[in-house]
Amino acid sequence: MQTTYQKLTHLSKEIHTYHSILSLLHWDQETYMPSGATTPRSEQIALLSHLIHEMKVGPTFKRYLSALIDLKNGKVKAKGLKKNEHVALKEWRREFLRATKLPSTFVKEFSELTSQASAVWAEAKKSGNFNLFAPFLEKIVQLNQKKAELYGYDKHPYDALLSSYEPSLSTTHIETIFGRLQTELKNLLIKISNSPSPKTAFLEKEISAEKQWHLGTHLLSKLPMDPIHSRLDRSIHPFSTALHPYDSRITSRILPNRFFSNLSAILHETGHSLYEMGLPVEYFGTPLAEAISLSIHESQSRFWETLIGLSLPFWKFFYPYLQKELPHLKRVPLTSFYRGIHRVQPSLIRVEADEVTYCLHIILRFDLEKRLISGTLKVADLPDAWNQKMKELLGITPSNHSEGCLQDIHWSLGAFGYFPTYALGNLFAAQFFSAFAKENPKWEERVSQGDLLFVREWLREKIHCHGKTYTGEELVKKVTGKPLSEDAYCSYLKKKYNKF
Amino acid sequence: MQTTYQKLTHLSKEIHTYHSILSLLHWDQETYMPSGATTPRSEQIALLSHLIHEMKVGPTFKRYLSALIDLKNGKVKAKGLKKNEHVALKEWRREFLRATKLPSTFVKEFSELTSQASAVWAEAKKSGNFNLFAPFLEKIVQLNQKKAELYGYDKHPYDALLSSYEPSLSTTHIETIFGRLQTELKNLLIKISNSPSPKTAFLEKEISAEKQWHLGTHLLSKLPMDPIHSRLDRSIHPFSTALHPYDSRITSRILPNRFFSNLSAILHETGHSLYEMGLPVEYFGTPLAEAISLSIHESQSRFWETLIGLSLPFWKFFYPYLQKELPHLKRVPLTSFYRGIHRVQPSLIRVEADEVTYCLHIILRFDLEKRLISGTLKVADLPDAWNQKMKELLGITPSNHSEGCLQDIHWSLGAFGYFPTYALGNLFAAQFFSAFAKENPKWEERVSQGDLLFVREWLREKIHCHGKTYTGEELVKKVTGKPLSEDAYCSYLKKKYNKF
Repeated sequence: MQTTYQKLTHLSKEIHTYHSILSLLHWDQETYMPSGATTPRSEQIALLSHLIHEMKVGPTFKRYLSALIDLKNGKVKAKGLKKNEHVALKEWRREFLRATKLPSTFVKEFSELTSQASAVWAEAKKSGNFNLFAPFLEKIVQLNQKKAELYGYDKHPYDALLSSYEPSLSTTHIETIFGRLQTELKNLLIKISNSPSPKTAFLEKEISAEKQWHLGTHLLSKLPMDPIHSRLDRSIHPFSTALHPYDSRITSRILPNRFFSNLSAILHETGHSLYEMGLPVEYFGTPLAEAISLSIHESQSRFWETLIGLSLPFWKFFYPYLQKELPHLKRVPLTSFYRGIHRVQPSLIRVEADEVTYCLHIILRFDLEKRLISGTLKVADLPDAWNQKMKELLGITPSNHSEGCLQDIHWSLGAFGYFPTYALGNLFAAQFFSAFAKENPKWEERVSQGDLLFVREWLREKIHCHGKTYTGEELVKKVTGKPLSEDAYCSYLKKKYNKF
Repeated sequence: MQTTYQKLTHLSKEIHTYHSILSLLHWDQETYMPSGATTPRSEQIALLSHLIHEMKVGPTFKRYLSALIDLKNGKVKAKGLKKNEHVALKEWRREFLRATKLPSTFVKEFSELTSQASAVWAEAKKSGNFNLFAPFLEKIVQLNQKKAELYGYDKHPYDALLSSYEPSLSTTHIETIFGRLQTELKNLLIKISNSPSPKTAFLEKEISAEKQWHLGTHLLSKLPMDPIHSRLDRSIHPFSTALHPYDSRITSRILPNRFFSNLSAILHETGHSLYEMGLPVEYFGTPLAEAISLSIHESQSRFWETLIGLSLPFWKFFYPYLQKELPHLKRVPLTSFYRGIHRVQPSLIRVEADEVTYCLHIILRFDLEKRLISGTLKVADLPDAWNQKMKELLGITPSNHSEGCLQDIHWSLGAFGYFPTYALGNLFAAQFFSAFAKENPKWEERVSQGDLLFVREWLREKIHCHGKTYTGEELVKKVTGKPLSEDAYCSYLKKKYNKF
């Protein structure tokens, strides 16, 4: 006889298994799918998404769940459950209540609108024509306002949207942190802009796709990835997806004149992938084997991409190989290479930003989307507001909307509340890293010898293995002894860039 | 308001869409899936297969179907339907009745047993130990006997099993055709063995995997495949799978010392793929856009692999390219090459057999599996029976069971009744080809100039576009004016091999 908890677990595992299949459909679409198969692929995705949604909010799920936990007050009813089973039940309840708050007519309307809108956005971005996209964005903002009402919130409607991506932090809390962060970054930026810029021509040399791929796979082989359970492919935009802790896939892209971008992407996506592979497989299908939030996910990718992947010890280890493979680097000493990959330069495009200016791009978007959602900024005024804020934060102005407010796909997909997680990821990462460095005083020596396994093991033990047992806020306190703040990140940046 | 026919079509399309997703899971498993992901993949496949089965035999499907057609006598009840809608209803009914004849406990038992058995078979094949596999094969034979009883049959229990793969031909009918075919092939074989064997050393030269892949993709680019809707990858065994007429995928494999094998495989799988891409996309999800049977599918692959791909005109076109790419062929004239790829040699392994001996391998299996199913051959006696039959048909004897009765995976998967379709595919192909050649008297000239599109268009018009409108037997009569026989195939072989 199965207990109700086992039945719920079984059903949840089925839902997650369908979700794995959905991930494969997306992965295949971005990697190998024939280009003419978009119509049947959309139909496959729509059908499976609908099935998953129906199972998540369906009567069977509700029956099991409500037998175990009071849906109204969140009190666990079932006796004799373990502590982690309580955790799972609370998370299942939270997700169930959120999912059931959106009527299926709303979900359908939202998905149809954003599916149309993302195609229009692509068109508008190509031509720089904001007016083409504006009517869609207006509707998307309206539907997001409605979504916030449906979810409910205490203070700011933006809280309700944020909660889909980072449930443990409020808008007000983020405003406070971002406010201080903005000041610190702007000060640092002034300091940096007063120093001479490093040479970077050697980073812009054209390297063949084959060679770049070779460098990338070699890099990957040196990272603590498990090749039995993962793989690397090419796609237009790098991404990471996990079907299961035993099947985690990353992609990278090749830009002929920017070989470092491929290496960065591999380090970044490896961070995401290691998180997914480190989730406790025995709990697959339950919240105990799920990533905490997008912020924490991003903290893992940035941990590898920047805190490890932009560290001097890492390049002490990897640069000799790079020099051997790329003859033009033979005359570039490690110090010059290291200095070159740390060039800071205010630029218009978020995805190309360096580690100092990156968060300013996010602060800009956070500010604008909050105002759009609260209604204090009209869609028609967005381009001006964007350009004005860009000037204020980064001192530069886009010459067209394609490199301005049309640059990101997120809003066209209806994803409001997503952007902050990119910056929060950096903050979490730096704060985790400060604890890591304290607990591993010899990390620099070890990393410079190519030992990276202990880094993964530390992250696995401190973060990955817990699944959703803790919220982001709780976890950072547990691991570092302090609530989330911008301190560690700013110290890290200042310590590094003051040396140059 | 949707009519019931539209509702049934919609539901059937959903089932087929889930089936497409299942095909992607299988394709990925054989191409890119990380090796350590077999456990979650089996779970994904099992879950989705179960969902598909439940939908196929479920009450909604039955309700729609039985409102439109009498499930007992097959009389269409609905008024005003088109002719092709009648066809679809009859096929839906046939499939529904078959699917509902197997209780879900039986389906589960069958799938669990064969899943275990195929792993044991792989082990047994490796070591040549038939005793390891025998107890599993015994159970598989028993379950197939039970399956035949559940499906029901008139004369021979084997008819019921055959019907899953080729519903339009009976065991008795195949016995008659195979009997004559066997005589003809054995006579031809004696004649051939009295002539000197051609030189083939140039086919055994080691060619690098990169080079072979390059040759293969070039070959593919010359075939009338649509690269927007198809792709080619590598796998251990070549195969073809179609998610949809817009997403058809083939694979090939590289054997270092047999470059011709890769080219053959690409021609073969292209034939399968063209069939799937030629099905009428507007009817996707209904029997009107489904392949008729495995025999007809195989006829399409063999059409391209042998009747076109082993023809002199084809090599007149493609051989100059091959000579340019493979320097060792420069001194091999086309006539010698053409003669070399037609070497006939009785051999132990079916998948390596030439076009003359291939069907004898099938006749052997057809005979043995019929006897296993009717109970006149015991599993314990299978190895001896195999070796004896091998001696009788091909004049050679396996030195171990790995190259004898353990060589094929089919029985371990529970697939009895499948083998005959390989030989039937050859017969259908040759018979179709005779009509094609008659209707296209200049085919040799056109093919020798690399024009292959008209071949695809002929097949599309005569075969692909009809979906399941006709049975295999009906279609061959419609296209060639005659019922299926071994005549065209034997004439084709005799005409060709008598020239050497």
